[in-house]
Parts: sequence; structure tokens; C-alpha cells
Amino acid sequence: MKFITFQLPTGEEKAGWLHQEKMAVDMHELSNGELPSTLLEFLQKHEFYTSVLNKWLDILTEEQKGVYRLQEVKLSAPVPRPVSIRDFYAFEQHVKSARIKRGLDIVPEWYNFPVFYFTNHLSVRGPDDVIAIPPNCSELDFELEIACVIGKQGRNIPAERAKDYIFGFCIMNDWSARNLQREEMKVGLGPAKGKDFATSLGPYLVTADEMEKYRKDMHYQLKMTAEINGRQVSEGNAGDLYFTFGQMIERASSGVTLYPGEVIGSGTVGSGCILELGTDVHPWLKQSDEVSLSIDGLGILVNRIEESG
Amino acid sequence: MKFITFQLPTGEEKAGWLHQEKMAVDMHELSNGELPSTLLEFLQKHEFYTSVLNKWLDILTEEQKGVYRLQEVKLSAPVPRPVSIRDFYAFEQHVKSARIKRGLDIVPEWYNFPVFYFTNHLSVRGPDDVIAIPPNCSELDFELEIACVIGKQGRNIPAERAKDYIFGFCIMNDWSARNLQREEMKVGLGPAKGKDFATSLGPYLVTADEMEKYRKDMHYQLKMTAEINGRQVSEGNAGDLYFTFGQMIERASSGVTLYPGEVIGSGTVGSGCILELGTDVHPWLKQSDEVSLSIDGLGILVNRIEESG
Repeated sequence: MKFITFQLPTGEEKAGWLHQEKMAVDMHELSNGELPSTLLEFLQKHEFYTSVLNKWLDILTEEQKGVYRLQEVKLSAPVPRPVSIRDFYAFEQHVKSARIKRGLDIVPEWYNFPVFYFTNHLSVRGPDDVIAIPPNCSELDFELEIACVIGKQGRNIPAERAKDYIFGFCIMNDWSARNLQREEMKVGLGPAKGKDFATSLGPYLVTADEMEKYRKDMHYQLKMTAEINGRQVSEGNAGDLYFTFGQMIERASSGVTLYPGEVIGSGTVGSGCILELGTDVHPWLKQSDEVSLSIDGLGILVNRIEESG
Repeated sequence: MKFITFQLPTGEEKAGWLHQEKMAVDMHELSNGELPSTLLEFLQKHEFYTSVLNKWLDILTEEQKGVYRLQEVKLSAPVPRPVSIRDFYAFEQHVKSARIKRGLDIVPEWYNFPVFYFTNHLSVRGPDDVIAIPPNCSELDFELEIACVIGKQGRNIPAERAKDYIFGFCIMNDWSARNLQREEMKVGLGPAKGKDFATSLGPYLVTADEMEKYRKDMHYQLKMTAEINGRQVSEGNAGDLYFTFGQMIERASSGVTLYPGEVIGSGTVGSGCILELGTDVHPWLKQSDEVSLSIDGLGILVNRIEESG
């Protein structure tokens, strides 16, 4: 299933799923309150709620209350207020290229374990949201990533059991102010202000069962592309991840409890940002540029850039 | 005032304040529900709730419902589930010493702006909670820090207006697995797994007005000490911060909305961790060690170490 959060023309926020690719279902309204009003609450008890949902799914018609035509609503990030976002750095090609651009070699430690940083989970943007260029940013970039959302509480989860903890997947755009990032990273605490202002998720959260057809062990063979203003600039594959989501979850949960609604980002796919492509392929993003990220099975996530934050 | 979150012997979590240093007030019960049941909700509308609170404060007696003797309850972190934690790196002496230990000089960029990373806001521990040594950690350390908690939503907040956004202050212990941190930091994304497992806050959240007597501009003259098993190992002063909380808030809020319940940590005060002191002063922490951090006006935050996570 494709879970969504959406806004009615009144501005009210609703959560539910995409039905037959053309209807947005408000699960709370449809079910007379049997299902919750946010996707985060759904995630927190998703095994129970999925059985309730299936009952309503069986009798769903277009005329029921809580069923909206997709054109009537605006999609938000599927989980607009995730519990946290850990962003990994798990595609080898991106790490090599990004470090070379900063005059650094790939360090041998990179191969030993997947490494992450926490980014601002309070700055999440959804499909079609505008991205404001943050103050003092002269080198705005996108990053094409795939993310999973945790659906079950766990601790010290071995990679081979991690699949049970993944509720679903979505596209992630880890917007980056490269000049801010470059300066702050010299101090040694990693990227923070360079990524603080926005992270896009969406357009929907696709349940893990729907992605099974793409899976081989813990690798998902998914073409990933980025377009800027309609021109494709990047193409990669989620199957190229050096560390699987299983390994990332093992790392994240070592000595730490993971909760439903936490987001795990893959890091940028090879060639999936301007930093890697070079500004001869595309200049840094500017006012009105439109960035479209697409991943097999996960849809297309589009955002447009606007001046000033 | 000193705001607290505490547990009754039944395990129920309550929030309120410390009254006359000997009573724990459950503000929700005392006020018949006029005041909220968590400190986070209080923070989100604290101007309104403070006026309600003052009414109840005027007529408070030890016999009222919701008033417990401090000995009857166990304090938790004042905000057990903060919205986020940004940890800065704002004491010059710590940065110099910590980088020298890693064979690095202080970089000139450090002086240009305060730098932070996000740490795991879901791993917060309170006073007297045990700290489990995380898997594969052979070099467990404490870090003596002062933190402020945001009480008002804001964006692009200039340093000179930041005071209006601070609800209060508390002690913070940024527990660190130095061997994990050292390895992961070579990859360049900063500390994450090395800090992921626990951050202590407490014992209470002292409102900014109570700290005014220590303030000079945005510097607070507060003696900060750390003891291990009753022996003092560190002494510093919050007045030595190179970047003030005002400057940290200006940095954090640049192009980014800050929300009530976000925590801003100062970074470690000079000499406030074993990494800096050297293991000849004290070996890495082990099973049963007790670490007590104390800051003028903010109380004493004690935790004990336990094997296994």
C-alpha cells in the first residue's frame, strides 16, 4: 500500500492511503475514528491497525465519506513529523566522489561499518513544497536518497532480522547548502547547518511488502533518477548500496532503542547530487529550479526552489 | 522556578515543580487538569500556563492533592522526551584539548561561528538513572555541559534577542563512547554512534529568571564541577563559553524554525571529560562508577554506570 498524508483545501491535515492511484483516503474519517488521524500513530500500532484497515478496504467505494479525488488534495510528506532522521553514507561511489571533491581520499574505516549523522527531523518538506534557500547559502544542492521508516520498536537488531522492523520506503531529498557544509565540516562535527533547513520525503510511504518484488537479500534493485527542470542529471540504483538497510538498522540499533517513525536515509546514490556531478553538468540550484527525484516503485518527489528562508 | 518530571512509586510519570526544595508538585493533579501533564506541553504555551500556575502557587499547601514529599518520588529528566538536541562545541579549551588528543590542531573556522551536531533526543536519561555501557565500548566517558531549553517558537533569531526564547537551563551529561566516536569520526560525518546511547539531563529545569543573578550580558558565571566516585576531577565555568547561548541560538535558528522543547547543549566545559583530563587522572568509566555533575544554581546530576546495553 501507499500511505499518504495530505491537506484538504481547508488546510486540514489528513492521513490515509492512495487508492487505485486516484483517490486519497482519510482513514480516520472513513473508519469513523477506528483508524488514527496521523500516520505516525498508525505506525506505532500498525499490526493492529492494518487488520482494521483491511476490513474497511474490503467495502471501500468512491462515494464513501473520507474518500477524496487526488486532484482535490495536496500531498504532504507521508510522515510530516518523523521521530528522528538518521542519514547514512552507504553508497560507495558517492563517498568516493564527494571526498575527492573536498581533496580527501575515502578512509579505510568507511568499509568497516555504516556511518550516519542525525539531521533535523523538524524541517521535513513534502512533495511540491517550495524549498527556501537558507541564509548565506551560495551553493544549494539536492541529494537523491532512498529512506526507510521504522515500524516496530527494537534494540540490538541483527541485520538479518531488520526486515521485520521496516514499515516502508520513500524517496528522500537531503537538501544541502554546500558552502555552509564545507565550512562547518572543517571543525569536525560533521554536517549540521548545511543540512538543517530542509529534507523532503515522499510522495508516499510504500509498505515493504509492495517492494518485495524488487528485493534480493536485503538489496533492492531500484532505478533512481534525478531531473532538474525536466532534464535528467543523475541515474543510479538502490542495489548499489554497499551497506544494506539491514546493516544500517543493525548499526543504528546497537545499544540504542529504535522507535516507530524513525527515518533511516541511505545517503546519496552515486552521481545523485551536483557536488558529485560538477557544476559544469548543472550549476548550483537557484530560484525557480524544479528538482524531481524518482525511484522505481516509490513515485516521483518534486520540489521547487525559492529565494530566502 | 525549578520544573521537574518525576515518577510515583506506581511508575506513573508526573510533571510539575520542586516546591521549597522538599516537595514535588504534580501540576496537573494539583490544578484539576488546568495545567498539563507533561513539561513539554507546559513549554509549548508557557506564558499562558505560568499565569495559571501562579494562581495555584498562591494557595499551595503541603496537604493538597498532587503534592508529594520529594523522598517519595524519583526524578526523571525534566524533559524526558525533548523535541531535539543540538549539541554545540563552544568552549575553546575543550576544543583545543580534545583535538590535540586526536593529533589535530584547532581549525581557524572554529572561531568564525558556533558549530553543532544533532544527538539522539530519544536516549535521554534522568538523575540517578543507570547508564548502560553500549556494545563494543571500551572507553566510556562523561562530558560536563550546560544546556538551555527553548520555550518559544522562532526563526532567524538574533543573538541579542535570544534570551526571550530560552525557557530555562539544566545540567547535561553527553555520555561518549570514545573508541566508537574516534573510529566513526574518521569518516567525516561527526560523532553519532559514539554519543547515540545516552544523554543525561537534570535534575531540574531552572527557569531563566532564576539564573539572572548569574548573568552578565549573555554570559552566566556558573562554577561547573564533575566528581567521579566522590572525587572531584573537573572544574570549569560557564562564563568561559567562547560563543554565548545567544550566538548558538542565532546559529541554530538561521533559516530554521526552533520549537519549544528543543535542547541546546553548550559542548564540554574545559577539563570536563576524561578525554581531556587523560586516563592518568581517571581511567575510562567502568561498572559501578558514579559520575556527579554540578553547576551553580542548577543542582547536581548523578548517574551510575552499568555493564551491557
